[in-house]
Amino acid sequence: MLGNIKICPGYRFAGVHCGLKAGDALDLALLLSDCPAVAAAVFTKNRFPAAPVLYGRKQLVEGHNLSAVLINSGNANACTGHQGEIDVMTVAEILAAALNLSREQIFVSSTGVIGEPFPVTTVLKGIETLVSELEGEVAKAKALEAAARAIMTTDKLPKVVGIEVKTSQGLVTLTGIAKGAGMIHPDMATMLAYLLTDAEIDRQVWQAMLQRVVDKSFNRISVDGDMSTNDTVLALANGVSGCSLTSPSDLDVLENGLLQIARDLAKMIVKDGEGATKVVEITVAGASKVAEAEKICRAVANSALVKTAFFGQDANWGRIIAAVGYAGVEIKPELVNISFNQVRVVSGGVRDPGYREEDGAAVLRLPEFTVKIDLQSGEDEFTLLTSDLTHEYVSINADYRS
Amino acid sequence: MLGNIKICPGYRFAGVHCGLKAGDALDLALLLSDCPAVAAAVFTKNRFPAAPVLYGRKQLVEGHNLSAVLINSGNANACTGHQGEIDVMTVAEILAAALNLSREQIFVSSTGVIGEPFPVTTVLKGIETLVSELEGEVAKAKALEAAARAIMTTDKLPKVVGIEVKTSQGLVTLTGIAKGAGMIHPDMATMLAYLLTDAEIDRQVWQAMLQRVVDKSFNRISVDGDMSTNDTVLALANGVSGCSLTSPSDLDVLENGLLQIARDLAKMIVKDGEGATKVVEITVAGASKVAEAEKICRAVANSALVKTAFFGQDANWGRIIAAVGYAGVEIKPELVNISFNQVRVVSGGVRDPGYREEDGAAVLRLPEFTVKIDLQSGEDEFTLLTSDLTHEYVSINADYRS
Repeated sequence: MLGNIKICPGYRFAGVHCGLKAGDALDLALLLSDCPAVAAAVFTKNRFPAAPVLYGRKQLVEGHNLSAVLINSGNANACTGHQGEIDVMTVAEILAAALNLSREQIFVSSTGVIGEPFPVTTVLKGIETLVSELEGEVAKAKALEAAARAIMTTDKLPKVVGIEVKTSQGLVTLTGIAKGAGMIHPDMATMLAYLLTDAEIDRQVWQAMLQRVVDKSFNRISVDGDMSTNDTVLALANGVSGCSLTSPSDLDVLENGLLQIARDLAKMIVKDGEGATKVVEITVAGASKVAEAEKICRAVANSALVKTAFFGQDANWGRIIAAVGYAGVEIKPELVNISFNQVRVVSGGVRDPGYREEDGAAVLRLPEFTVKIDLQSGEDEFTLLTSDLTHEYVSINADYRS
Repeated sequence: MLGNIKICPGYRFAGVHCGLKAGDALDLALLLSDCPAVAAAVFTKNRFPAAPVLYGRKQLVEGHNLSAVLINSGNANACTGHQGEIDVMTVAEILAAALNLSREQIFVSSTGVIGEPFPVTTVLKGIETLVSELEGEVAKAKALEAAARAIMTTDKLPKVVGIEVKTSQGLVTLTGIAKGAGMIHPDMATMLAYLLTDAEIDRQVWQAMLQRVVDKSFNRISVDGDMSTNDTVLALANGVSGCSLTSPSDLDVLENGLLQIARDLAKMIVKDGEGATKVVEITVAGASKVAEAEKICRAVANSALVKTAFFGQDANWGRIIAAVGYAGVEIKPELVNISFNQVRVVSGGVRDPGYREEDGAAVLRLPEFTVKIDLQSGEDEFTLLTSDLTHEYVSINADYRS
């Protein structure tokens, strides 16, 4: 399935079933770097951070280079108190011992149900299987896909991207995997993403670059407005390419590459949002401040009424207007224009005289389209990707734990 | 159907079909006071206020006593620009002429689809029918119910309440009708409510009383987090009881009565929320500020994941924790307790040791229950009523205009 996705040299992968998910679904993933990698990370801002998030933040603050990432699905290890923190430490210790690394080199993520005790013995047994898998014959592309599958919760498809970029020092590879599905929201959600490169880069530069990239990619998507306790984006740079990137132009090349894979993963997350049938790009333009454009954009993207209208393929622009109106931003209603793709629907706050319902409906039938809201009050704008709200979303989330 | 609902003396009612809704569904209502009534009102804060809201605000600012209220469903007269405003004026003029009143005594409300041109001729014809209906033989209770039905959109049931309260001046009656269903949100939604009394009261006192009552009733409910362009609560006091209320104790009696009918209507709105199968009272207690309790309460009540879990009768407290955590309030996770009715689910931020899944599940199966979140960090609290998010909500809103 990976086609021409570039797999970053100097990393190995594994994904196995250890018993956290039903049946034989993969539920434990390992990403292993051949040498300690410079790490950067962005975590959820939720006030109930899960135990692995607390652990990971500490790892990053202490500035450890990382060699291995263990990720389980099926249990979030969130709201598990002190025991949850001990459990993270335990799995990190055991994995380190199995791989002949130090505990500080291990990063841990969990995703799944919140508030269940963490099944630490199940995971410990899984670690054995994982490590033996690494020594097996599985082709790298297959192993990467297995890892991407093992981190899925209600995702339908694994999310993997990989590209090469050309620097003055030579070719550098960027590979990423992610999981999304529910609780997707700007400012990070039940979203895990791992971005790997074989470039060599300074730690502070790498962290600042990741933060900018996350703000323009994963923080610009919204599925249901919820923000989870476990969201994490981790970026590793192990330098095995021998390309040490320091010049502004090389760093630009790397940042653009990182942004590309992050945006691709973010879009895959929206597309595979729980029950989603549409991917809609919402742009608010002509604002006098970016923050105001963003506020309106998020109000529209999170409106249950707007999202059900997208699902119903109903060009119900009145609901968009209502959301613009309650976003809490002072606007001039009589200046507002709205278009669906190229079709002008609203001009000056009222239905455009030339607008025909069938033109709007034709856009809404597309699997992907844009909604542009022009406030005509300034030069600033903001864009988000969102999905529709469907019966399947309700089914998935009404039955998630049963 | 009205049972022992008290109908306020000195008012007449009518509800007819004029052709705004399909079939022969009632779509035009008239509330008529025998004499000009002191008026108070609270309107939507949406930045795209509908034409009748603009008109109504002006009426209130100018301090006119009101004699008649015309309400149509089927078309919101919102985002209809200058023509929409002319149309409100036209129907007010025509109704005034038909009833031998001045235009200033007429209040107008609309609810329905946003952005469609207002079908003014259809409404004008409807006014004739309405007025002839008033002169007919329809019993008052039946006429009141017809009016309550004529203002419905996706509501399944008309919402009517009526009580008597005892003042030092004698008995006073309070009667109210409302519509809700979609776009229900604190700070007013696609919600219309008309509260009538035969007491006599000073205009300013009446306005201040209504604002307090709305804050504690209609602004404490949430169905889907949307806020419409048309929300209006109008309160009329025509004084025909002869009870002029001025003493603090009499005003208290009236305010308590007004709050009771407003809360009853608000609860009916949540119960009849689009597709709702549950009414859930969410309380955030132990906060150090009311505003913080409110912020958390609204985050939980508006979470799509929490609301689908209610629908699935799933005691998924992890989603509640997640919403508490992303509400943007500094909290101490290790102090947070959560109960469903009397069942303690979370203690100190983790699952209560004595909690059994079947106890939580038993509460979630009830049609009404409470969720109490205790932050244990202060004395302040906030309560909201909300509903669940269901397949039917999606169906209703995906197909609303088709």
